[in-house]
Order: sequence, then C-alpha cells, then structure tokens
Amino acid sequence: MSIAVIYGGNRPDGNVETLTKLVTQGLMVEEIYLKDYSIEPIIDKRHAEEGFSDVNDDYNAVIDRILPHDILIFSTPIYWYSMTGIMKNFIDRWSQSLRDPNYPDFKALMSSKKAYVIAVGGDEPSIKGLPMIQQFQHIFDFVGTTFAGYILGEGNKPGDIVQDLKAISAAEHLRKELQ
Amino acid sequence: MSIAVIYGGNRPDGNVETLTKLVTQGLMVEEIYLKDYSIEPIIDKRHAEEGFSDVNDDYNAVIDRILPHDILIFSTPIYWYSMTGIMKNFIDRWSQSLRDPNYPDFKALMSSKKAYVIAVGGDEPSIKGLPMIQQFQHIFDFVGTTFAGYILGEGNKPGDIVQDLKAISAAEHLRKELQ
Amino acid sequence: MSIAVIYGGNRPDGNVETLTKLVTQGLMVEEIYLKDYSIEPIIDKRHAEEGFSDVNDDYNAVIDRILPHDILIFSTPIYWYSMTGIMKNFIDRWSQSLRDPNYPDFKALMSSKKAYVIAVGGDEPSIKGLPMIQQFQHIFDFVGTTFAGYILGEGNKPGDIVQDLKAISAAEHLRKELQ
Amino acid sequence: MSIAVIYGGNRPDGNVETLTKLVTQGLMVEEIYLKDYSIEPIIDKRHAEEGFSDVNDDYNAVIDRILPHDILIFSTPIYWYSMTGIMKNFIDRWSQSLRDPNYPDFKALMSSKKAYVIAVGGDEPSIKGLPMIQQFQHIFDFVGTTFAGYILGEGNKPGDIVQDLKAISAAEHLRKELQ
Repeated sequence: MSIAVIYGGNRPDGNVETLTKLVTQGLMVEEIYLKDYSIEPIIDKRHAEEGFSDVNDDYNAVIDRILPHDILIFSTPIYWYSMTGIMKNFIDRWSQSLRDPNYPDFKALMSSKKAYVIAVGGDEPSIKGLPMIQQFQHIFDFVGTTFAGYILGEGNKPGDIVQDLKAISAAEHLRKELQ
Repeated sequence: MSIAVIYGGNRPDGNVETLTKLVTQGLMVEEIYLKDYSIEPIIDKRHAEEGFSDVNDDYNAVIDRILPHDILIFSTPIYWYSMTGIMKNFIDRWSQSLRDPNYPDFKALMSSKKAYVIAVGGDEPSIKGLPMIQQFQHIFDFVGTTFAGYILGEGNKPGDIVQDLKAISAAEHLRKELQ
Repeated sequence: MSIAVIYGGNRPDGNVETLTKLVTQGLMVEEIYLKDYSIEPIIDKRHAEEGFSDVNDDYNAVIDRILPHDILIFSTPIYWYSMTGIMKNFIDRWSQSLRDPNYPDFKALMSSKKAYVIAVGGDEPSIKGLPMIQQFQHIFDFVGTTFAGYILGEGNKPGDIVQDLKAISAAEHLRKELQ
Repeated sequence: MSIAVIYGGNRPDGNVETLTKLVTQGLMVEEIYLKDYSIEPIIDKRHAEEGFSDVNDDYNAVIDRILPHDILIFSTPIYWYSMTGIMKNFIDRWSQSLRDPNYPDFKALMSSKKAYVIAVGGDEPSIKGLPMIQQFQHIFDFVGTTFAGYILGEGNKPGDIVQDLKAISAAEHLRKELQ
C-alpha cells in the first residue's frame, strides 16, 4: 500500500502541512508540492476537432508521480471555502488526461485508488468546509476513486492547528489506518 | 446600476458564455475574461511579518475594472463540480486585496455590491453544482456582497445550452431583473 | 404518464400548494394531502427478529395511491430548512415498505418513477433550501427514483408566492414538461 | 454547565443512543426520549388572524425540560439522510413557541445555548449526512444557538457503532470537552 500526498498550499509549514505530516510520519510517502510545479489551467478542448494540445508544463510529471500509488492524500488549506486555485487547476486538467492517448489507463488507475482529504481553514471549517467535501465526493465518484475519509481542521496563523485536538486525534487515527 | 461580468472559462463561445450573453444582451456591461489576464496563485502571507509582496501580474488591473460596478456576474463553466481554477485563483487573491494598503476600501466596496452566478456543467449541474453555490454564498458572505441569484445550466458540447429551456428562461428573467 | 402529488403542508391554501397547482392545472393528478391521513412514525425494526409489526394507520393507503403513478411531485413548505415532519414521517416509513412482504415490488416500482420537488420557504430558500434538495437526491438515489427537477419558491404569508416571478415561471415550464 | 440530551430515535439501545451515552457517561444529563411523548405536527398558523391554537399534547412539557439547560445534544439516527420525523415534528413546533406568549423568552433562551448533534447512519453518513448537518446549522442560526460540534457515526445493526473507531474517539473527545 503506497501513498502519495498532494499538497495544494503554498505557505511553507502551513497548518495543513503540519496536520498532514502528523498523519504520514513514519510512513513512506511520496510528497508532491503542487506549488513547485508549473501547471497551466486547462484549455478546454473536449469538443474541439483537433482535441487537446500538448501542454509544455509539469502537469504530466505530477501525474506520473501520482499514478503508481494506491492511496492519494489531498492536502489543502481551505481558501475561500474550497481547495486552493493551484489544486483546482491541477484537477481541472484531469479532463485532459481522461482523453490523452498517452494515458489510456488514467481512469482505470484512478478508480483503483483510495483518496483522503485533509484540509485546514480558519472560518468554521467543520461547517463551511462541507461543500468542498461534497465536491471532492463528486470528483472521486467521477473517476471511480474511493473517498475513504477526510479531516477538517481549524487554524489561521501557522501553528494554530496544534490547538485543534479533534483534528489532531483524527490525524492519529488516520495514521493508524494507513499503517 | 452598472454591471461587470467576470468570465472564468477559457473555451471561446462556450455554453456559459452563450447563456450569460443572453442575460446581458442589450445591457451595458463590462466584460472581463480572466483567461486574457495573467493572475498568479496567491502566496499566502497573511501571517508573514513582511506581509504580502507586490505581485507583478494583472490581478490588480482586473480588480480595478470590477470595483466601480454595482453588480458582478460570475460566469463560469462547472469544471469538476466547481468554478474553474482560473476563477478560483482570482478569488484566492482577494485575501491579498483585503490587506492591501492600496485598496483600503476593498471590503467596503465589495459589501455594497450584488452578485449573481451563472454556471453551466455537463453532469447534473442542478444537483451536483449545489456545493459550488453554497461556496459562493460563503464567499459573498465573507466580503458582505449580496448573493442575488444564480442560474445553473446544463450542457457539454458547445451549443448544448440552447436545449436547456429552464436555463434560457431563467436567463430571460434575470435580464429583465437587471434592466 | 400519470401523476401523483404528495402534499406535506398543513396550512390550507399555503404558498406551496398555490405554486404546485400552477404546475398541475389542466393535468389529471391524484392529490394526496398527508395531513388528512394518520401516519405513525416508524418503529425501526429492521434488525428485530420478529421484523416490522403491522401498523394500524393510513400509511399503506397512501402508498397504494402513490404506487400506480409514473410521476411523483413532493410538494412541501420548507419548515426549518427541510420538508415538514409530516412528510418526513411518511418517508421514514419507506424503510418498512422495503421489507414488507405485502409490497414485494416497492423498490422496483419506485425505481421506475420520476420525482419532482416543489418547496416554498421564507428564509432564502434558493440557498438555505439546498441541503433539503441534496437530501431528496439521496432519498431518490436509494430507491432508484429519477430526480427530474425541483422548484424552490420564496414566500411567508399566504399569497406571497405570486410575487416570486422566477418560481412562477419555473412552474409554468414544469407544467409544459408534464403535459 | 448543565446538559439535556434530546433523543430522536425509537429503537431501544440503538447505535446513536450507545454513542451518545459514551459522550455523557459520568456527566449529569437530562435525557429526553421524544418517542415517549406525544408531539403533534405543527398546524402552521403563523399568519392566521387568531394565531396558533393551544395544542393538547406533550410538546410544552418537553420544551420545559429543555429550556433550563446550557447545552443541548440532539441525538438522532439518520433516517433517509436526515433527522427522524419525530425529531423534525418537534423542531417544526418551535415556530409556535417563537410566537407563544407563554414563552416570551424562547428565542433569547435558545440563543444562549450551545448545541451538539450526534447522528448515526448506515449509508456513508460522513458524506451523505452532511446536508443534515448544514440544515442543523441553519436551524441553530435562526434561533441563535451556537452549533458547537457534531459526530457522524456509521452503523446499521444494533451494536455496529462500536466498530466505528473514529466516532468512538470523537465521542471520547466530546465527553472531555463537556466535563
């Protein structure tokens, strides 16, 4: 059971990174920081005659790192009640992978995976973060990925997350689940 | 009553653009296509000592076009059950404007506006688009903008939207409301 | 294509009844006012050895009126951001029908139907009524009923609904759809 | 800090009762089983000239037991993706209390309380139970009650809940929080 973590934040040592590392400490994980990659927004050519154009960026490199793993952890700060724009641009591009002849098994591979979401926000995340969780459910349903669980933590300033004992405890539970 | 439309898609003549233009035809509107601007993802420095750094991109130019208007229409294709990554990156940056000494009235100005959302998706948007609507509600609540209404249309291939008679009718209603 | 309307309110001539009759005028419909029936809350015996007990109330009479129809319209005022308790008690009892040897085809019959929801509330129904719509989606998914559409109208005092032009227009669209 | 628990289920020793008692063990709590009371559905007379009629049932007796407490725990099995019809009928009646001259402080008292929701369901409650949580948020917002937290457990057959280690752990956390 191998694990990839996809980080959507771009603040070093942010709360959600702290919480996520509590989950993954002691486990072998492939850590992918989307902010370190150049990922273009999708140019929607699903219905263009010529199909999608190759994009000269790092998107496929990230996909190549993710696809081999059994478990994906999406770790994102909650910005404006959803995942970060960086992470959204990454997921938007899945529409291209779904039609990319170089990735004929993209959907099949995604549908064999389990996914978790770890997210931290400052404004009542356990309530106002729920639409984001519902979106992830729809996203995972579409590609057939099993949505195995989520943690919504609360924090604003770096370090705040250690005060959220419920989130810390949930992280410890998840670590045991992943061992 | 002046109107700005913020387009989040990047397919020319996409369904949501068609639907939105049905709403705005005959009205004076400022049309902003986010895809034509370079907008960086936010570097979250809300809690950094030095504060946010100036970003050398087009974000403020877009803000400058939006702020004078009374009504904002957010027009986005539904990608993966939410607004596009381009639009999300744009909204993420509001966190910076909220702290930008060059925009001391950002929140006050936003709180005097009314907003509408027009969105078109291919996978049961009237149900699976609802979390996105709830997110927009939270977004608008945060800055004090009145969420005055939304239209969720259905379409995949360009042109599909004209088949969605409910959405077309809702667009006509909204046009009358905006006159 | 035959239609049954299931009314969940208990105020005569309430807003949702007015809106619903706009949808059904000129159509043959079977109108069921749940308030006129005695329907007990479910006694959950899904896992009791003896199974569910027969209940001496009108629940089955209502089911018998509903099952022959192709289309079900659930018409409910929004009380406290969801369907009325009367309607909820009625739906709760479906758990019993699903196990009732006298109704061996309950699920199969339900799964061949299309359902609509018409609801009117006083507190921002187009936003705060959305969790109710999501609940109905889950309910219909469980029994396999197609959720074909919904109208969320706004009104408090009797008669208010005629001011909600969007809802009125949606009702007219739905009437045409049902003809 | 005194606590009332409002039970919405009607299966003895159901999963949500087990989970709730894990939260309240060792604490002084007033336990109210709604199934043991006769509570009529509301007859909506908010706009009737004569106002609401007195109802000859146990509703006010339940209100009288609840109002003195600082903390309310709503404990309900998830039936059809929401609270039970029994609990919904109880909450529907709050509309009457809000206008009842015998309870002039109903809203003020409710707004001074904190509320928790504990719910157990069999069909992916951590996802499909979220609309119910959003609904409770709207309910509590309306009367000004602070929504202090919730636990969504998974279980079908009586006893199942002890397998849901995340829910058990959350219950233990909540017990400490309430001590």
